[in-house]
Amino acid sequence: MGLLVVGSVGLDTVATPFDKVEDALGGSATYISLAASYFTGPVYLVGIVGEDFPTRYINLLSEHNVDLEGLQVVQGEKTFRWSGKYHYDLNVRDTLFTELNVFEKFDPIIPEKFCRANFVCLGNIDPVLQARVLDQMVKPKFVVCDTMNYWIDGKKDDLMKVLPRVHVLIINDSEARLLAKEANLVKAAKKIREMGPEILIIKKGEHGALLFMEDIIFSAPAYPMEMINDPTGAGDSFAGGFIGYLHKCQDLSPASMKRAVIYGSALASFCVENFSTKGIEDLSYLRVQDRYREFLTLSKFDEND
Amino acid sequence: MGLLVVGSVGLDTVATPFDKVEDALGGSATYISLAASYFTGPVYLVGIVGEDFPTRYINLLSEHNVDLEGLQVVQGEKTFRWSGKYHYDLNVRDTLFTELNVFEKFDPIIPEKFCRANFVCLGNIDPVLQARVLDQMVKPKFVVCDTMNYWIDGKKDDLMKVLPRVHVLIINDSEARLLAKEANLVKAAKKIREMGPEILIIKKGEHGALLFMEDIIFSAPAYPMEMINDPTGAGDSFAGGFIGYLHKCQDLSPASMKRAVIYGSALASFCVENFSTKGIEDLSYLRVQDRYREFLTLSKFDEND
Repeated sequence: MGLLVVGSVGLDTVATPFDKVEDALGGSATYISLAASYFTGPVYLVGIVGEDFPTRYINLLSEHNVDLEGLQVVQGEKTFRWSGKYHYDLNVRDTLFTELNVFEKFDPIIPEKFCRANFVCLGNIDPVLQARVLDQMVKPKFVVCDTMNYWIDGKKDDLMKVLPRVHVLIINDSEARLLAKEANLVKAAKKIREMGPEILIIKKGEHGALLFMEDIIFSAPAYPMEMINDPTGAGDSFAGGFIGYLHKCQDLSPASMKRAVIYGSALASFCVENFSTKGIEDLSYLRVQDRYREFLTLSKFDEND
Repeated sequence: MGLLVVGSVGLDTVATPFDKVEDALGGSATYISLAASYFTGPVYLVGIVGEDFPTRYINLLSEHNVDLEGLQVVQGEKTFRWSGKYHYDLNVRDTLFTELNVFEKFDPIIPEKFCRANFVCLGNIDPVLQARVLDQMVKPKFVVCDTMNYWIDGKKDDLMKVLPRVHVLIINDSEARLLAKEANLVKAAKKIREMGPEILIIKKGEHGALLFMEDIIFSAPAYPMEMINDPTGAGDSFAGGFIGYLHKCQDLSPASMKRAVIYGSALASFCVENFSTKGIEDLSYLRVQDRYREFLTLSKFDEND
């Protein structure tokens, strides 16, 4: 048992047409851990920050039962910082700056107690580091991996070595097209699954998500929102809700996997309702269940007559 | 009882990266009628063609129990022709030419026997003509209307006069954003329904469709396709399947409306599998039911536990 999450922990400065936050809590491991914490715990987090990382963020993670033994705090160094600006339609964003800082020398050392975790979520980091994480695990039963166009373009060979070692790859539609070099998503999914992951999830933002597993395709709806405040972290929240639910129920059947996709979608929908991690800081399992039921209402229709 | 369909009947010359057809059967009324014919009949068609309109197309429509009393055949004139070329990703198309020909003087005269139809499907034509159709109807119970950016841009005032007279508006996502002047689809839907139609369906192509009705939002998945041969007529086939099913069951409840959206999606998915009307010419009610069940499998997930 045990769920390990490895990824970035950082400070985000984000502007949308509606509001702005500075040095807010961010990073893939942060979002994944918080989202997963509504289903299971403790969540084992492995990441790196500088000495400027605010204590209140440490406390926030601890309060969510995130085990921070694997969070390296490097004295005399600064935390990873990212700044982005979203345009009016929120699907387009510009990166204003990326300061790798301490993240540049991140070597994911997995504390001994974490090495026996049977569920692993590899956040969107260099595939070389993702492989190094897996090297340290004793017997990982279920590995979920995120990646992005930056690694698909720049570290394809390393990524191709990671993919056969993961059970689920979660990427968005443009990344899937890029990775498979194929515009049609059904065909792209086939090609990507041949690269290693038995299960593929393609996130389509405001259009929901597709799950490919065995000979099944499952189409999850997107939660209809009148107001998206900050899309940052939606994908990571999805991954966290997804693996958190599966770790809780320890059931990897297709029916369970479909439910996990809906829970992932639910956490992503909470995430974008507010800036930074605000949308997933103060949830309850009850509220998550309510949103799950809303997804059910949204997509349910009768057998034909 | 009775289902009236009014729209264009034409000859399409379509090229995709995969194949090409010339002077194939086309037009909104054609697709709508054929799609609806799998649920109900006779379908009352009102349209106009020239003397060059091939007899084999007349026969095809008749074989599908389409009543052609309202099809004006104008001697000495040519049929409406449209030609388009699709790009590799099939979401982008160029219109190569549009020859209105006989369609330029189309005055939709509804034969007396059609005027008592209680279901009306207004294909994508000039809103002035759509209004003229409604003027002739005795007691239309359920009016479905399609339109497009061309009319939203060019005949907004006339369109705004039609909208309060229709029960369902079916448009695609970009048209919805244009009509409402609002990027967010949930907000756009609200604004559009305030213009008149109680029910709004927003088609999102490869991402499915959204139904807005009462305080319900229903998200229908798209059928995952490895090969789309010709997207022409997909929207009209959707409308035909939708209204055809509802006319068959005469049940306008939300549950029925959701089923109708799925039947519409099913007919659209058959349509794009083949060029022109080929994909919806030789179906059976059984095959349509099978595809409906595939949609169910695609989107069904359990209650949470």
